Amino acid sequence: MQTEHTIAGIRAALAPRRKQGERIGFVPTMGALHEGHAALIRRARNECDVVAVSIFVNPTQFGPQEDFERYPRTLEADCALCEHEGVNVLFCPSASIMYPEGYATYVAVERLSEPLCGRSRPGHFRGVATVVLKLFNIVAPDVAYFGWKDAQQLILIRRMTEDLNLPIEIVGVETVREPDGLAMSSRNRYLDPESRRRAPALYEALLQARRAFEQEGVTDCSALAQQIRNHIAQHTGGRIDYVEIVSLDQLQPLTSVQKGNTLIALAVHLGGARLIDNIRL
Amino acid sequence: MQTEHTIAGIRAALAPRRKQGERIGFVPTMGALHEGHAALIRRARNECDVVAVSIFVNPTQFGPQEDFERYPRTLEADCALCEHEGVNVLFCPSASIMYPEGYATYVAVERLSEPLCGRSRPGHFRGVATVVLKLFNIVAPDVAYFGWKDAQQLILIRRMTEDLNLPIEIVGVETVREPDGLAMSSRNRYLDPESRRRAPALYEALLQARRAFEQEGVTDCSALAQQIRNHIAQHTGGRIDYVEIVSLDQLQPLTSVQKGNTLIALAVHLGGARLIDNIRL
Repeated sequence: MQTEHTIAGIRAALAPRRKQGERIGFVPTMGALHEGHAALIRRARNECDVVAVSIFVNPTQFGPQEDFERYPRTLEADCALCEHEGVNVLFCPSASIMYPEGYATYVAVERLSEPLCGRSRPGHFRGVATVVLKLFNIVAPDVAYFGWKDAQQLILIRRMTEDLNLPIEIVGVETVREPDGLAMSSRNRYLDPESRRRAPALYEALLQARRAFEQEGVTDCSALAQQIRNHIAQHTGGRIDYVEIVSLDQLQPLTSVQKGNTLIALAVHLGGARLIDNIRL
Repeated sequence: MQTEHTIAGIRAALAPRRKQGERIGFVPTMGALHEGHAALIRRARNECDVVAVSIFVNPTQFGPQEDFERYPRTLEADCALCEHEGVNVLFCPSASIMYPEGYATYVAVERLSEPLCGRSRPGHFRGVATVVLKLFNIVAPDVAYFGWKDAQQLILIRRMTEDLNLPIEIVGVETVREPDGLAMSSRNRYLDPESRRRAPALYEALLQARRAFEQEGVTDCSALAQQIRNHIAQHTGGRIDYVEIVSLDQLQPLTSVQKGNTLIALAVHLGGARLIDNIRL
């Protein structure tokens, strides 16, 4: 595995392979890699000739009160995971390479960046869209892989890629979960033991809602959302940021489930962590 | 000359030439082509193997009270000029191809989009940056040509290209002028005959300021700006939008001329047209 820290370096590493017509798969990450990232890398490995991974804790997607400083940095373990999964090129730029002095350009994806996590994290998706566009332009992949865990991010990146006419395929990969159902996340390590024990209730609540829809025919979104809120309140004691049922394509609130176009998404503050999860109907 | 109206069409036209390692030069325009555009095309012709020109009157860079509807559309003459200048591929997309339903992504270049024309045309440079980024992604040129006439646009596009890590060289080409000094512009045709007669006073005022700096050693920006305003008021009767003296790199107001880093820019409403011009010291 080749590790590059500069833009010229990663470009030089990939240029000859692109020239030979090899298909380049890209997995952008903020490091602190877990099995969810490994699933993205394996999918890229299966579908592409070359797999590039980036590790960059992107300052522009963190709010001033958020966890940029304490976000886990585990570079040594990350490199081992990438090596083990057969990554060809690892790109680890510094913040000053990505955002040099005088940096001024930001990408906004209207509407899709506003609901759900956008409400409590203003500016977050602007930072995400900007860094992903930059990484796309640097790596110039044929295909890029994102987890469904961050559903809003995936949907927004797809929109941006289409809107900006980038010749890149965006692939969504299913959320990887712990054996007890908790969605894997770099932020799970913020959980104290008691909160970690309670955290699977988020996914249980989502599964309950799916059962209510599929088996009992409940289609009323406010009823489903209330059921989810109740379950989370009863079983976690966490502070609910949001539980919302929206259309998958536009992220607009639904009153009634639209089969095949419904996303139930939630964010809950629990024992030092802000956890998100979602399910599609 | 090959003319394409779809994104797939222009990509297919350029892909084989790119594959052969040919250098692609790109001149984005809004049509109503004049000698200024011809100068951009000739420069591209001299420096590249392939010249692509786009003609697209971009709705997102016009304000609601601006001249989008009446902006001159002279496609037949434009095609003839392109043909005559040796353009290889002409890209003429529709608005619905560039901004399909659900379009949501916009690019903002902070600071550089705010002063000068940005003040009286809010949203203008957001529209410019967005459409240029899209065209860059569609055409994927090696080099793109912009006129110094639109100095703020050129500086902002350079910043965007660098910030977003686009592998594209941005070339600025000197303003082409009528024999009496008026900067060529598609909007000059809005001028009634009397205003057209007076319009060269804008450039005269800029040249006077240059002489005052170079020959009389005047470096005080407010004195130079006042001299320009006086000349324009006396000789045109136009309504001055702005006369500003700013740094060339940051477009920040200067109190004293910085040799090699000074832009004097102005915008004046004159007989149905809003004219802009500038000079560098």
